[in-house]
Amino acid sequence: MTIEYDGSAFVGWQRQPNGLSVQEAVEDALSGHLGEKITVTASGRTDAGVHALGQVISFSTCSHMPLKGIRHGTQALLPEAVAILDAREVDPSFDARRSARLRWYRFFLLNRDVRPAVGARYVTHIRGPLDMALMEQAARILTGEHDFRAFRASTCEATRTRLTLHPPRITWGSDGIIILDFRCRSFLQNMVRILAGAMVACAQRRLTLDELRTMLETGVRHHQATTLPPNGLFLYRVYYEEEEET
Amino acid sequence: MTIEYDGSAFVGWQRQPNGLSVQEAVEDALSGHLGEKITVTASGRTDAGVHALGQVISFSTCSHMPLKGIRHGTQALLPEAVAILDAREVDPSFDARRSARLRWYRFFLLNRDVRPAVGARYVTHIRGPLDMALMEQAARILTGEHDFRAFRASTCEATRTRLTLHPPRITWGSDGIIILDFRCRSFLQNMVRILAGAMVACAQRRLTLDELRTMLETGVRHHQATTLPPNGLFLYRVYYEEEEET
Repeated sequence: MTIEYDGSAFVGWQRQPNGLSVQEAVEDALSGHLGEKITVTASGRTDAGVHALGQVISFSTCSHMPLKGIRHGTQALLPEAVAILDAREVDPSFDARRSARLRWYRFFLLNRDVRPAVGARYVTHIRGPLDMALMEQAARILTGEHDFRAFRASTCEATRTRLTLHPPRITWGSDGIIILDFRCRSFLQNMVRILAGAMVACAQRRLTLDELRTMLETGVRHHQATTLPPNGLFLYRVYYEEEEET
Repeated sequence: MTIEYDGSAFVGWQRQPNGLSVQEAVEDALSGHLGEKITVTASGRTDAGVHALGQVISFSTCSHMPLKGIRHGTQALLPEAVAILDAREVDPSFDARRSARLRWYRFFLLNRDVRPAVGARYVTHIRGPLDMALMEQAARILTGEHDFRAFRASTCEATRTRLTLHPPRITWGSDGIIILDFRCRSFLQNMVRILAGAMVACAQRRLTLDELRTMLETGVRHHQATTLPPNGLFLYRVYYEEEEET
């Protein structure tokens, strides 16, 4: 299934004791509708407050219910902040996490002095002037294969930190909106928020391009490469083996 | 002042006993900061749930505080759902309502089968196929000078219902987003929501173009020309005498 959710309503993707997770909401709806205990695997775990426009999940069921019936019955049991965009039957070997070959995150920034009154949960607010050319240069430095261990949360448990980042795309929209697109086979914990934080720090001249290069070379995080808030971050799309990139 | 607000948090622009209005929030913040009772006039009264990205308000004060101080001190006292985008001193003859010569409303529709989980308060959800050509034709029929008395709430008290509507602009975005722009010197109560509702009804073939023409000619509302919800509606910009349209 491909699902959309508003991360503000949840403690994150993953089940945890201190509040409602997207995983729990989805598993409860599926289990309730199918009448059996369903466990789902997601393409990736989004943090609390991070949204998804194209999260992909997989699960097994013994049900013979038609796909459409599964989809609509489950949708009816989901909270308002979750919607099922698509559902299809897949080969038993398919695993939403392991079969993914590219994850695409989109980060919406709002660059203006005044804090947003409309859509505050969907943008990260950045005050003060940004040097667009410096942000573009930072994106070029981050592009390609690097050890990204300076760009992850201290709690990240991944053993492989060498990844190949596709060229981050920067779109300067109207009214101060900036869209950052990050695509990679996989991301480390908080990696997108730290990549975006480092690019913003370069554009604000708080972090030099040399300091950014040093982060990649030494694996040591610079204190100016802050983790941006989750507000503006969306898991936008996940690509699997057979799909063309669009 | 030009202000932005999230209409979901309020009972509408106008003060009323049954909940917090934007007017009350703004007047309380201004009065609190300036230490005198402030009454504000807005370019127009938005309904409950309608947002504003460029509402203009005017007021008089005896204060000699610099403009920047008024703006920042007031901003600090406002709820999160209201922000001051701009403030300037104007001629005493300026009145945010009477001096306005063009109001611009923007309506965001989401045309897809699945209800929105993200941004539900900022779009009106329209299911099923829409005939784009019919919607464009409906926009052309509505363009120009007409008696729009079939396009207002039954509670509307305006005496002049003959208005000149600028050509409604339709922008077909990605992922089912449709943006409708309506510009007119002034609008009747609920007029934008009914205009958009009529255009959607034409695009869904529930209302014929002839029936739309008849509404303009007879002043009688067709039952298919429904009032769309306020979710996707934004007061986008207001133009005054001296300004160029952009």
